[in-house]
Amino acid sequence: MIDLKTISTLPPEDLDKVAIKKLTVEMQQEILQLQTLLLANSKDSVLVILQGMDASGKDGIIRDVFTGLNPTNCSIYSFKKPTDLEFKHDFLWRIHQQVPQKGEIKVFNRSHYEDVLIQKVHQWITPEVCKKRYEDINHFEALLKNNHTHIIKCYLHVSPEKQLERLTERRDLIEEHYKHNENDWKERDHWDAYQDAYHQAFTNCNQTPWHIIPADKGWYKSYLVAKLLLETLQGLKMDFPSLVK
Amino acid sequence: MIDLKTISTLPPEDLDKVAIKKLTVEMQQEILQLQTLLLANSKDSVLVILQGMDASGKDGIIRDVFTGLNPTNCSIYSFKKPTDLEFKHDFLWRIHQQVPQKGEIKVFNRSHYEDVLIQKVHQWITPEVCKKRYEDINHFEALLKNNHTHIIKCYLHVSPEKQLERLTERRDLIEEHYKHNENDWKERDHWDAYQDAYHQAFTNCNQTPWHIIPADKGWYKSYLVAKLLLETLQGLKMDFPSLVK
Repeated sequence: MIDLKTISTLPPEDLDKVAIKKLTVEMQQEILQLQTLLLANSKDSVLVILQGMDASGKDGIIRDVFTGLNPTNCSIYSFKKPTDLEFKHDFLWRIHQQVPQKGEIKVFNRSHYEDVLIQKVHQWITPEVCKKRYEDINHFEALLKNNHTHIIKCYLHVSPEKQLERLTERRDLIEEHYKHNENDWKERDHWDAYQDAYHQAFTNCNQTPWHIIPADKGWYKSYLVAKLLLETLQGLKMDFPSLVK
Repeated sequence: MIDLKTISTLPPEDLDKVAIKKLTVEMQQEILQLQTLLLANSKDSVLVILQGMDASGKDGIIRDVFTGLNPTNCSIYSFKKPTDLEFKHDFLWRIHQQVPQKGEIKVFNRSHYEDVLIQKVHQWITPEVCKKRYEDINHFEALLKNNHTHIIKCYLHVSPEKQLERLTERRDLIEEHYKHNENDWKERDHWDAYQDAYHQAFTNCNQTPWHIIPADKGWYKSYLVAKLLLETLQGLKMDFPSLVK
C-alpha cells in the first residue's frame, strides 16, 4: 500500500546532483536508440502518465526527459478542463482517442485520473460514481495492456512547502508569470483532500503500478522518470526486424 | 442461452404484413417525438448495434426505421475493414470514438463484434486473444452504460437460403449490383463457423442482452427493431426540462 506521508519528497542525501544529471543525459541517448527500434518493430507502445499537484513539475519532466527524443514517434498530450463535447461522453472517451499507436511513446500531462481527483475533491461526482470510475480505469488500462501498451504511471510527490515556493515564483517573477494561475492558490487549500484522493486512486487502481517520484528537486525527478522509461524500453528486448519475405 | 438453430428466421405465420408495416410507420412517429425529448434532456443516449451475416438486411433496417428521424441527433456509422491507423490501436479505439454523445441516437452498422467474428472465423486471432476481447467488450459496454448509454444489440437472423437469394439478386439485377461483393460469396462458405462465432459472442457478451431478429422478411425485422428502439426511449420516461434558474 502506498502511504504518501511516509515517502520523502527529497532525493537521498548522498546523491551527487552533477553525476545524476550526466546520467540522465546518457540515458536519454539510449532511449533515443531504443525509440528507433520501437518504431521499426511497431508491435509495442509506451504510455507515460504524469500526475501530481499543481507545480509538482510535470512540465519540467517533459522538458528534461522528452526534449531531444525523436518527435516522429514521441508526443505529449496535455489534458485540460473537458470541452462541452467531451463532457457529453464518458470520461474515458477523450482519453482513449489520445492513446499511443503501435511504435509510439506518448506522454499524458494529466490524464483520466483527474476524473477521480479534482472531481472527487470538489464532490462533483458521488462516491458511487467514483467507485465505478476506478473499475472503468482498471478495465481501460487492461485493454491497453492487452494491446501491448506499456503504461508507466508517475505521481510527482511534492511537499506543500516546495509548492508554495514555486507558486510564489510564478506570481513574482516575470519569466514565470505565464505559468501563474490564480486557481492553483485556491486548490492549494484542498491539499489534504487531494492527498486523500490520490491515496484512494493508488489503492483502487494499482494493477498497473504507480511510481511515486520524489519531486522537490527537478534533477532527481527527471532522472527517475528517464530511468523508468529506459528500463521499460530495454525490457522489450527489441532487435531490428528482418525483411518480410 | 441463445441457440440460433432453434430460432426461426421467419415471422409468426399469423402476422399481417400490411398491418405490421402500418404499425412500424406509427412507431416511427412516436420515436420522432421522443427523439426531441432525448435531445432536450441530453442525459441519456441510445446505441443500436446491428450485426448479421452478409445480406441479412442491416441496410434495409436503416432505410426503413431511421429514414425520417431527425438527423440532428440521429446518425449511422458503418464499420468497414480497419484502416492502417486503426490497426495500430486496440480494437475498441475506433469504436469508442463513434459512440453517441448525450442526447443522441447512434446506429452501428457492424461494430466491435466483427473483431470476435470475422477475425475468429479466419483465425487471425488466437482463442486467448478472442477471450480477452470478450472481456474487453463487456467492460467497454459497462463503461457506456455507466454513462447512461442504452445499448440495443440486434442480431439479424437470416437463413442461408434467403442469403443465397439476396446475393444472387445482387449479382443478377442492375439495381442491386452496387451491393455486390465477390467476397460475400467466399465468406458464405464459412457459414457454420460464423454461426458458431456468433454463438460464442452471444454466450460471452450477453450482459447487455442480444436480441435475435428473424430477418428473412424485411417488414418484420424493421418492425422489431423499431419496437425495441421505441420501448427503450419510452423506458426513459422523459419530460421537457424546466428552465435552469
